[in-house]
Amino acid sequence: MNQDYIKLNDWSIIEEGFDKENVKSSESIFSLGNGAMGQRANFEEKYSGPTFQGSYIGGVYYPDKTRVGWWKNGYPEYFAKVINAPSWIGINVLVDGEPLDLNTCSRVDNFRRELNMKEGVYYRSFIATLKNDKKVDVKVTRFLSLDLDEVGAIRYEITAVKEDLTVTFSPFLDSGITNEDSNWDDKFWNTTSISSQGNQAFIEAHTMKTNFETCTFMDCQMEYKGKIQNKPDETEEKELWVGHAYQQKIEKGSTVAFYKLGGYTVSRNHKGANLVEAAKEVLGKATKQGFDALLEAQKKAWEGIWEMSDITIEGDTKAQQGIRFNIFQLNQTYLGKDSRLNIGPKGFTGEKYGGSTYWDTEAYCIPFYMATKNHHVARNLLKYRYNHLEKAIANAKKLGFTNGAALYPMVTMNGEECHNEWEITFEEIHRNGAIAFAIYNYFRYTGDYSYIPEMGLEVLIGIARFWHQRATFSKQKNKYVILGVTGPNEYENNVNNNWYTNYMARWCIQYALEQLDKVKAGYKEDYDRIIGYTKLSKSETDEWKEVADAMYFPFSDQLGIYLQQDGFLDKELVTVEDLPKSQRPINQKWSWDRILRSPYIKQADVLQGFYFFEDHFSEEDLEKHFDFYEPFTVHESSLSPCVHSIQAAKLDRMEQAYQFYLRTSRLDLDDYNKEVEEGLHITSMAGTWMSIVEGFGGMRIKNDKLSFTPRIPKEWDSYSFKINFRNRILKILVDKSGAHFELEGDHEMSIRLNGERLVLQPVAKNPVQ
Amino acid sequence: MNQDYIKLNDWSIIEEGFDKENVKSSESIFSLGNGAMGQRANFEEKYSGPTFQGSYIGGVYYPDKTRVGWWKNGYPEYFAKVINAPSWIGINVLVDGEPLDLNTCSRVDNFRRELNMKEGVYYRSFIATLKNDKKVDVKVTRFLSLDLDEVGAIRYEITAVKEDLTVTFSPFLDSGITNEDSNWDDKFWNTTSISSQGNQAFIEAHTMKTNFETCTFMDCQMEYKGKIQNKPDETEEKELWVGHAYQQKIEKGSTVAFYKLGGYTVSRNHKGANLVEAAKEVLGKATKQGFDALLEAQKKAWEGIWEMSDITIEGDTKAQQGIRFNIFQLNQTYLGKDSRLNIGPKGFTGEKYGGSTYWDTEAYCIPFYMATKNHHVARNLLKYRYNHLEKAIANAKKLGFTNGAALYPMVTMNGEECHNEWEITFEEIHRNGAIAFAIYNYFRYTGDYSYIPEMGLEVLIGIARFWHQRATFSKQKNKYVILGVTGPNEYENNVNNNWYTNYMARWCIQYALEQLDKVKAGYKEDYDRIIGYTKLSKSETDEWKEVADAMYFPFSDQLGIYLQQDGFLDKELVTVEDLPKSQRPINQKWSWDRILRSPYIKQADVLQGFYFFEDHFSEEDLEKHFDFYEPFTVHESSLSPCVHSIQAAKLDRMEQAYQFYLRTSRLDLDDYNKEVEEGLHITSMAGTWMSIVEGFGGMRIKNDKLSFTPRIPKEWDSYSFKINFRNRILKILVDKSGAHFELEGDHEMSIRLNGERLVLQPVAKNPVQ
Repeated sequence: MNQDYIKLNDWSIIEEGFDKENVKSSESIFSLGNGAMGQRANFEEKYSGPTFQGSYIGGVYYPDKTRVGWWKNGYPEYFAKVINAPSWIGINVLVDGEPLDLNTCSRVDNFRRELNMKEGVYYRSFIATLKNDKKVDVKVTRFLSLDLDEVGAIRYEITAVKEDLTVTFSPFLDSGITNEDSNWDDKFWNTTSISSQGNQAFIEAHTMKTNFETCTFMDCQMEYKGKIQNKPDETEEKELWVGHAYQQKIEKGSTVAFYKLGGYTVSRNHKGANLVEAAKEVLGKATKQGFDALLEAQKKAWEGIWEMSDITIEGDTKAQQGIRFNIFQLNQTYLGKDSRLNIGPKGFTGEKYGGSTYWDTEAYCIPFYMATKNHHVARNLLKYRYNHLEKAIANAKKLGFTNGAALYPMVTMNGEECHNEWEITFEEIHRNGAIAFAIYNYFRYTGDYSYIPEMGLEVLIGIARFWHQRATFSKQKNKYVILGVTGPNEYENNVNNNWYTNYMARWCIQYALEQLDKVKAGYKEDYDRIIGYTKLSKSETDEWKEVADAMYFPFSDQLGIYLQQDGFLDKELVTVEDLPKSQRPINQKWSWDRILRSPYIKQADVLQGFYFFEDHFSEEDLEKHFDFYEPFTVHESSLSPCVHSIQAAKLDRMEQAYQFYLRTSRLDLDDYNKEVEEGLHITSMAGTWMSIVEGFGGMRIKNDKLSFTPRIPKEWDSYSFKINFRNRILKILVDKSGAHFELEGDHEMSIRLNGERLVLQPVAKNPVQ
Repeated sequence: MNQDYIKLNDWSIIEEGFDKENVKSSESIFSLGNGAMGQRANFEEKYSGPTFQGSYIGGVYYPDKTRVGWWKNGYPEYFAKVINAPSWIGINVLVDGEPLDLNTCSRVDNFRRELNMKEGVYYRSFIATLKNDKKVDVKVTRFLSLDLDEVGAIRYEITAVKEDLTVTFSPFLDSGITNEDSNWDDKFWNTTSISSQGNQAFIEAHTMKTNFETCTFMDCQMEYKGKIQNKPDETEEKELWVGHAYQQKIEKGSTVAFYKLGGYTVSRNHKGANLVEAAKEVLGKATKQGFDALLEAQKKAWEGIWEMSDITIEGDTKAQQGIRFNIFQLNQTYLGKDSRLNIGPKGFTGEKYGGSTYWDTEAYCIPFYMATKNHHVARNLLKYRYNHLEKAIANAKKLGFTNGAALYPMVTMNGEECHNEWEITFEEIHRNGAIAFAIYNYFRYTGDYSYIPEMGLEVLIGIARFWHQRATFSKQKNKYVILGVTGPNEYENNVNNNWYTNYMARWCIQYALEQLDKVKAGYKEDYDRIIGYTKLSKSETDEWKEVADAMYFPFSDQLGIYLQQDGFLDKELVTVEDLPKSQRPINQKWSWDRILRSPYIKQADVLQGFYFFEDHFSEEDLEKHFDFYEPFTVHESSLSPCVHSIQAAKLDRMEQAYQFYLRTSRLDLDDYNKEVEEGLHITSMAGTWMSIVEGFGGMRIKNDKLSFTPRIPKEWDSYSFKINFRNRILKILVDKSGAHFELEGDHEMSIRLNGERLVLQPVAKNPVQ
């Protein structure tokens, strides 16, 4: 834990008191997003201190030319980066001619930020004493509308504290922005037009190379004592900037409110349309409602989100705030409306890991979205990969695979691989398995089989073809082996027979073969289309089967455990406990070769396989493997604690499970990794949700039915969560006395609780006690 | 083979006819060097076509900030680059006002370059018809003086072919030069002063960061019909440039000669001195002799070098030219006068592999220098590493090693590691073994033990400490293992128990222990000093011994061979012969992961160990391992064919040995790797020498005695070479009838020929027949 300035509160994230040291960290933590755009918590008014400016538009990226020390064949040419977009939030403020700038003010009192997660609104307030000794009380309200997702709204209120004042608001748009992360200092944006019309202004700019056209817009008005001014006193246009000015004399004790609506219209959502006209249209809708109505609608929209996705924890505010922050950020990042979008590791909160999509989506995020939204959201995430199938086939081809073998990218924005370390790009191929697993998981949870004949089967075939070709036959072992891979534990590179990868490979082939049979039997037309398209033959699937049947798995007879990879037992097996604290985190203290030689595990690897395929193994097996591997695990990936929390809970090791839970849920609030300035760890937040629902709640799907084995950490009085299971809404509350269910709808539902069948009656008949 | 425009000739490299496509290639091949400075074969006069300009000063480098895609702890901050130095060769020419530029001339006839290797002189001549239709016959003679190694000399002669002409020579110095290889477009040079005095000019400039001060200088004169003009008609100074102009009317059929002496004085050789004064002093010496005397001295100096290092081959001009080119380039690069210098893979012929020193020096170059120079030269190369011991200890420390463990760098200029791929920098640690082996090899060959107590033992201790710490104990194997390495075959990364590396590690420890005993017994004072300094204890050396005694070596019982690394037999063992030609070279056709998974070997790995330690293995063993590994070897390293040539010869597979020989000896002349433009492969040239002397000649040192098992390729009538063995000069001539020896000096000498003892009488008594 690296910071503790965030106040504990069930529903809000709160900072009190102005500390310049926290500005960049808070800019991340108080970020706003609405699934279509995002905004770091940068100040509206000028701020001359250190800051990390970030405005992001979903799906708008730049292919930054790859930078490497030593080029290797097969490396991608470009790294697709979510980029800082033209800024719409700026409102410079003059008080009697003196700029308001918290970095240079004489005093800042009562500074407070609140990210009200219940409402989806960000509040900021302070009393500033300026260098000219004038004193203003400022209150800012900001949100990105969920209803009109191209629009953000700001209300900026200034009260004269001790004398009459003249206040000038200078709202502006600025396309002269840069990226902190840029390989070659390329210019990412080209500005094509700047215009002002009355109280509105527009900057049209397009990204270089990708040519995403955007219009950044604003619409302002000022209100003082009931009188509204919606024509600026001045208008100024510069090369990459347009600004207006509104001036108002205000009396001591009175308040002037300045309203700014702003945001983006983007060519990808307005094909062929005039983006300025499109901006005017959405501004028309927004101004027609007005700020207050938009704000109310925002609260209502978030109420709807929370209604379905909230998790309550009684008796542990730290834990409660943590889980809500995670759920809030996930919903800010992705709402599942657009199958061209996905969930970037930093969402809309920073630039790092610039390419948007990782296997995190399939391995961690899909369960959250399946349970807290309707199945269309998860289906859209699956469809995203289906739409990238041709690119995945091209990625594989680049590495020498043929015949429609598909290798999904490690990092991508448009389906092309972006990453450029050979040990990841070319070798961390287990990601392909997660894509297939998500298809299985989606059907298991939602019962919606239609995705498989329509799209999924083609993905499964491409993936099976990849594994078939990637495995090679070892005469010595008389088995198929998979050489030269990096497993989920990235602290091992270029190993042979990573158990997780081999297991995944075999499962992918077997699952593809099963689904081929199933689609053939039940969806003849789809089957014929797909066979025609993929030219899949019996002899080819026989070869797949041969590989799957004879796959090699490293195993220690002596220990009775699967080995993470060939040769794992040759390492010096000193547990993390016996590693001096001064040596950790090893990724900061050790050279890479030392990490690679060590037995230390960055995140679940064998145990990730036990998580995905738990039904294949007994609890004794899990215990044996958990006891062997967890002691070597340093959890230096944000994706590690959640899986271990789930498995510790399953093994009824509740204290350990609780510790893992805290670490995953407050990773960013407490800045465990000393990097929250750069943005939030969005995808691991879905793991936090899994820790409660699958870990403590023990939720599983077994034979098309929900199953629970609820446990509760001793620190908690109770916790509850809600899930959408095949359009049935079920709330589960767990307290010290046990589990309590609240089923919506009209029909009863059969579940399993601790292995026993239980028939739940709808809510009227069986209220939560 | 990629080019064949070089004419076959025993003593010269010749190009005839002007082809712009060959300019950059010839700029490499016709390069000049004198051990202290080097010059690519760039034209003196303006050339507006594609060219790669290169002037280099031994030991003057720039630490270019590292560029990587993804930083890893332990990476070096800088890559030390031999850099392009201010240019001294330029002489622009105007003919009746029209610039002479071979790229834009109307015609170029009789163009010819000759690198006369016997003389160490580079000749260029042509007849140019300019755009103004004037015609000149040009002859240029250039060399870098071996005697005055700060000076190069040019004679530039122009004859008026068909009418009277006015010729203007504009000699200049230019510090406005750039590097083709630059990570961040840094400015490498800072020019501090420019001056002209009479017919001399000077540019003082220092490298940024490293602050090597240099003075680039010139001294010119023009001669026409016996009249000498040594005052320029004009002088011009610009910001980074100084030029003079000499004008002369010449009559049809007559010749004007322009002489330019130029070069560098450098602070590293003139501590605290005024470099302009130093330049004047060396110019004084040179002009006192004059061009013709310098030229004669040059020829004489090269005669001396050839006297000792020439290899003759009768009956095969292609092979003869190849070996002389290799020997010539090695002598141009390094003459052993300065222990601060070493042998860069491209010598003074290009920028690539910017950091100068690789393990190539110890593994490949030292045998050549030991046999063709006196032992001080090889000793200087060893001393270079001794001087870097502290830096090697620092390199190891950076990776987490302690207690004075030393890891010599993969690439370096000043002892610090420069390379930044983890799989090389951190893992290709076998290089440490080559440093120790060179110490052993030096003593074996020269009999000069003094290096070991004076310096070598400390190096051996640092290296043994490294191996002791780098090996870890495998409980499973009950042996010490070395995990996560890259062997000499760089087509495998991060493997466990690379046989070569493990074998080297054990040998290094054993050899260090032996030498500790020997120094203790015979050099008590040195021993005490070293023990005091290193704090080496009995318990520590006992631990070393334990590691060496229990080192693990991967071995296949079934095949009876040592395995290149753990798991090698799990690969798909398809030989190179069965690999489609279209797939080669695999380093251009395949992605890196595919290369890594394949069985293909870039250069000798297990066989490199069999080369170094041949006495440890029977010939049957060698045969078995050669037969197993060579068929998987793609020889995509310039260092590969020579070792295989030697071993094929040993196994009496002469046709194979001859093919390997041709490939190594004409690598650059025939441009096998399509990259000769970038510079020559200097270090592998020493391997070519070994192919003849150790391969065909079968020269070994056994029990302090020379031993030969001579063989001759069927394509050759005879071959001969000369060696300096412990200050005895012996010439060996091998023809179809057998071997013939010519021993210099007064005393007889006992050698072994084909295993039989033979006493050689000095030359007078036993002339070559």
